[in-house]
Amino acid sequence: MSRLRTGIRSTTIEPYPSAAAGSVVITQGRTRVLCTASLSPQVPDWIRRDATGNPEHGWVTAEYSMLPGSTPQRKKRGPDARATEIQRFIARALRAAVDLKKIPGVITCDCDVIVADGGTRTAAVTGAWVALAQALGDVPIEPVAAVSVGIVAGRTVLDLDYALDVAAEVDMNVVMTGRGRFVEVQGTGEKGVFDRTQLNAMLDLAAKGVKQLMKVQRTCLEKLE
Amino acid sequence: MSRLRTGIRSTTIEPYPSAAAGSVVITQGRTRVLCTASLSPQVPDWIRRDATGNPEHGWVTAEYSMLPGSTPQRKKRGPDARATEIQRFIARALRAAVDLKKIPGVITCDCDVIVADGGTRTAAVTGAWVALAQALGDVPIEPVAAVSVGIVAGRTVLDLDYALDVAAEVDMNVVMTGRGRFVEVQGTGEKGVFDRTQLNAMLDLAAKGVKQLMKVQRTCLEKLE
Amino acid sequence: MSRLRTGIRSTTIEPYPSAAAGSVVITQGRTRVLCTASLSPQVPDWIRRDATGNPEHGWVTAEYSMLPGSTPQRKKRGPDARATEIQRFIARALRAAVDLKKIPGVITCDCDVIVADGGTRTAAVTGAWVALAQALGDVPIEPVAAVSVGIVAGRTVLDLDYALDVAAEVDMNVVMTGRGRFVEVQGTGEKGVFDRTQLNAMLDLAAKGVKQLMKVQRTCLEKLE
Amino acid sequence: MSRLRTGIRSTTIEPYPSAAAGSVVITQGRTRVLCTASLSPQVPDWIRRDATGNPEHGWVTAEYSMLPGSTPQRKKRGPDARATEIQRFIARALRAAVDLKKIPGVITCDCDVIVADGGTRTAAVTGAWVALAQALGDVPIEPVAAVSVGIVAGRTVLDLDYALDVAAEVDMNVVMTGRGRFVEVQGTGEKGVFDRTQLNAMLDLAAKGVKQLMKVQRTCLEKLE
Amino acid sequence: MSRLRTGIRSTTIEPYPSAAAGSVVITQGRTRVLCTASLSPQVPDWIRRDATGNPEHGWVTAEYSMLPGSTPQRKKRGPDARATEIQRFIARALRAAVDLKKIPGVITCDCDVIVADGGTRTAAVTGAWVALAQALGDVPIEPVAAVSVGIVAGRTVLDLDYALDVAAEVDMNVVMTGRGRFVEVQGTGEKGVFDRTQLNAMLDLAAKGVKQLMKVQRTCLEKLE
Amino acid sequence: MSRLRTGIRSTTIEPYPSAAAGSVVITQGRTRVLCTASLSPQVPDWIRRDATGNPEHGWVTAEYSMLPGSTPQRKKRGPDARATEIQRFIARALRAAVDLKKIPGVITCDCDVIVADGGTRTAAVTGAWVALAQALGDVPIEPVAAVSVGIVAGRTVLDLDYALDVAAEVDMNVVMTGRGRFVEVQGTGEKGVFDRTQLNAMLDLAAKGVKQLMKVQRTCLEKLE
Repeated sequence: MSRLRTGIRSTTIEPYPSAAAGSVVITQGRTRVLCTASLSPQVPDWIRRDATGNPEHGWVTAEYSMLPGSTPQRKKRGPDARATEIQRFIARALRAAVDLKKIPGVITCDCDVIVADGGTRTAAVTGAWVALAQALGDVPIEPVAAVSVGIVAGRTVLDLDYALDVAAEVDMNVVMTGRGRFVEVQGTGEKGVFDRTQLNAMLDLAAKGVKQLMKVQRTCLEKLE
Repeated sequence: MSRLRTGIRSTTIEPYPSAAAGSVVITQGRTRVLCTASLSPQVPDWIRRDATGNPEHGWVTAEYSMLPGSTPQRKKRGPDARATEIQRFIARALRAAVDLKKIPGVITCDCDVIVADGGTRTAAVTGAWVALAQALGDVPIEPVAAVSVGIVAGRTVLDLDYALDVAAEVDMNVVMTGRGRFVEVQGTGEKGVFDRTQLNAMLDLAAKGVKQLMKVQRTCLEKLE
Repeated sequence: MSRLRTGIRSTTIEPYPSAAAGSVVITQGRTRVLCTASLSPQVPDWIRRDATGNPEHGWVTAEYSMLPGSTPQRKKRGPDARATEIQRFIARALRAAVDLKKIPGVITCDCDVIVADGGTRTAAVTGAWVALAQALGDVPIEPVAAVSVGIVAGRTVLDLDYALDVAAEVDMNVVMTGRGRFVEVQGTGEKGVFDRTQLNAMLDLAAKGVKQLMKVQRTCLEKLE
Repeated sequence: MSRLRTGIRSTTIEPYPSAAAGSVVITQGRTRVLCTASLSPQVPDWIRRDATGNPEHGWVTAEYSMLPGSTPQRKKRGPDARATEIQRFIARALRAAVDLKKIPGVITCDCDVIVADGGTRTAAVTGAWVALAQALGDVPIEPVAAVSVGIVAGRTVLDLDYALDVAAEVDMNVVMTGRGRFVEVQGTGEKGVFDRTQLNAMLDLAAKGVKQLMKVQRTCLEKLE
Repeated sequence: MSRLRTGIRSTTIEPYPSAAAGSVVITQGRTRVLCTASLSPQVPDWIRRDATGNPEHGWVTAEYSMLPGSTPQRKKRGPDARATEIQRFIARALRAAVDLKKIPGVITCDCDVIVADGGTRTAAVTGAWVALAQALGDVPIEPVAAVSVGIVAGRTVLDLDYALDVAAEVDMNVVMTGRGRFVEVQGTGEKGVFDRTQLNAMLDLAAKGVKQLMKVQRTCLEKLE
Repeated sequence: MSRLRTGIRSTTIEPYPSAAAGSVVITQGRTRVLCTASLSPQVPDWIRRDATGNPEHGWVTAEYSMLPGSTPQRKKRGPDARATEIQRFIARALRAAVDLKKIPGVITCDCDVIVADGGTRTAAVTGAWVALAQALGDVPIEPVAAVSVGIVAGRTVLDLDYALDVAAEVDMNVVMTGRGRFVEVQGTGEKGVFDRTQLNAMLDLAAKGVKQLMKVQRTCLEKLE
């Protein structure tokens, strides 16, 4: 099991060569996710057109996948229910960071997990945000990052790795903005329930973790400029 | 748009004839969901076996589907990403109500939406819990119910119908136990973000709504006994 | 096994709330089917266009599905060969009731079986006809209803429930109009063969059953007006 | 449109080389279907086992497919609703010809349409019966053949080609045994309805056609012996 | 195992009735493939349009499938990885025979294997070329044919049947033009490797086989004129 | 377009962290492929068992996929015909390097393209061979590497990047062993044909390229030891 920590696991976000407009690898502890952001001019059919026939706004979507070698027992390729839920989570988080009216087309953020050691969905949000910022260029973007918190053996824990995640009574994923507002709070008592006091303790811890992650995001963005 | 309310929408849970072990229809405002609970002796392969070759515990799963006539524009049949996410939410909520070691096999709770007017996933949890209790017979079950809350035009609102849901800045689904603990908290700022004060106000409102729903659940269960 | 009857099983067709233009539940014995009729303006591509670019006629189609709780052993969701065959049967029957040139678009009749106790495909035709009539409003519709007949232990039987159906040597589904003409005759010797005399006896019985069903259809339609 | 005929179209059934246990090509007018019968020892799971663990009976199933070059406009490969319905029809007809208790395993009759000019499903039954007989060797088999009849411009017609089929008010497929009993009667008023007198006239014509087809079947079987 | 041969197996290509523009059956030893060529006016979307909006060129594609009765153990229907690879091979070979700018639309060559006894992909190329030529009418076409060669027990062998193919250390498929140039060379050491000398010996043998096959192609084309 | 080269593009193979038993990234020019080798004890059903019930040999298989960000225009996820053909090519090449009797189970080599700039399938073979060697540990493995050659504007070219590949008249992929034998030779005249002299020139160039690649493989393997 992981060592004693008071903050998030050791985290880096590095530019990574790909053919996409934005492309980074985030490593958070042993978890490692390749995040790319690709532009396409064609928006979905359901977006309304204005009087001149142009779409009223653009769109940001996400896809999440675990590469076969990301788990000790090889992960089979292909969509599954968990990935479907996760990529909807990532896309909602990223859309909260942008003004869709400023986006000309669709940006797809692909999050491919290279090593899965817990917290892949929150790492994907945090990393994909940098790839998205890179792809957007001069279009402004709000800081958004995500972290997991949980209750393990009755104690609140920040940024759970796989061993902690398996042991956790409660697991919560929190997406926040740079001003400390919540974009998404997803707390689940997989093996227990939680009261308001525990919820508050987890949210405090999450806020602390998100601040640390935003520093790492900024460091990477500065390299990219 | 819906009238002024201080509580949940008008809600009933009624036994409904089917071939399943548990079977009710929940109506919450205009939303209407058929919830059945079917028993099967065969557990999934991934459940470990004990020394005598028996599975260590049973399982509770859920499927969620919108019937084609449930929306003004006919809903196409077949699985979609939203349904996948919702049925995982329902299943987690129901598993929190039971001791899986007491369940001999698999119980599948099917939630088929007959009319969709907002809050179908929380109505599905609240209704399926009754069908599950009916199917379990003498096996004990913890009270669990779910309700949606949100922020509409800056005000917290309980049990959003479709019109409110579309207008909401923030949408939150809350699953709670009879003792007021949280099983699941899923808050999403689809068109806005929210701070801790707003989160707390929504959770207070949700607790109130869940209490009202548990009364309706008990009334139906008493009819079934 | 079912009691002695000289006519059809006890049958009701009741309006049922949904978001579709037409919506009823038919119960025939224990069999229970939710039938909705939804309108869509867009016709299939294969329908020819007239000189002004409008489609030459509309279309009526049907989908048939058994809900998971409709059978004692839970029915898995998703299309299967039997359902495919049945929904083509229902659609042909309903198209015989209307003048497609009077229909502006596509009407999809969804037949979702809530309890399956034999005769679901004929109950679906009889119930969906009422939903279709309701959705059509002032557009005229010919009476059409369907019933099953069979040979069980050498005797002709009307409106077989599941136990009789399993025991039957011959199973026949008959769709008829209000003037006593045949729209469809589907007789199958699953466990035997049948001669002309037996065929005639079954057709006589079917004609009698269809008359009874049309009374129930009219009663429901009057309620809806 | 086809010439005046009082009987079936010109029909031959010829042995055709393949790797299957039974293999013929039937040509009926321009319609041409390759019918093979393949043996497999493994029966479906739903067939009950006797006390010694052996399946209580064997099974006969069928698959129907139109080859891409069988229609003037290329037919796309892959299953469709019509093929699903047709192969169930073929399989029921063939099962009526055999005592399943005498069949050790599964026989799959594959009917691949090389030229489609009407009546492919009945030609498939008639041809596949010969392939099945060939595959069965000494196991006894009842004569079974199928033919289509219809009403075109108010007159009953035997063995409709594509042009007649398109023009027909009523279309009926009839499967009969050597003793003149019905195995299956499927009459559909696609563009009209029919009364008892017309039904009887069509059945008389079908009986005549089936007798002619059984002669062709016997001729081929004698070649194969 | 097959008898001693110095040339290709006994080969015929015969016109075969279908509804397609080109249609032959090739038999090579026991291997037998039905090859049809169907015309469609609509080209794929990726083909560029010229200034007048017309596609810059047409397209030739191929589909390959084994009929269920083509193998002693019944072949299941539906696409598989091997068929996918083979139909891409066939299509490339056929495209080398034509000037796509002369082709107005898409020609799909369907190769359905009736008996599989080795060399089905090369027989498919050789046969489909004749069907393509027939469908093209006056549009010129280059001679193209294909044959397999291999190394069995250390000796080079031409036109392997199934027994030889299973025994072969090296298997090579060669597509050539009438002027002796290569269109495709696909040599695989499934159970061994090969050096340059062996490669040359196989290519010599393939050239000899292709010449023999082109004679059979011409004989069939003359019949069709 | 690429600069003048007399050898292969600049190539490195580096260990890369993942959860798989073998894991490297190969970069060849701008092309970049993540190759992992995962072990699984369970062999496919078709592998025969010996007298003691153990499988007679193990298996090596491969999967090939292009990540969405690997191409300037985002690549959609999911299997396609080209990937199917390529992964069969990779797997055959890798199986030639090992004695399957020495492999206890299945090794799956996953090749996920991070940047696609030509030659991805041959880079995948070369890189996956190192991952396979790493996963095999002490089990001996033969040197195997692959390279592409082609004819561009009439001249033979080694190791084509995307621009050269698009311009090439002939494209050939060559897999060779450490002793200079061929495992696979796949030459295709996509926009031209080639004669024996050109084939020989391409094979000479390929042999040179493979030698260079094997040096890079060895360098990486030494790091891993």
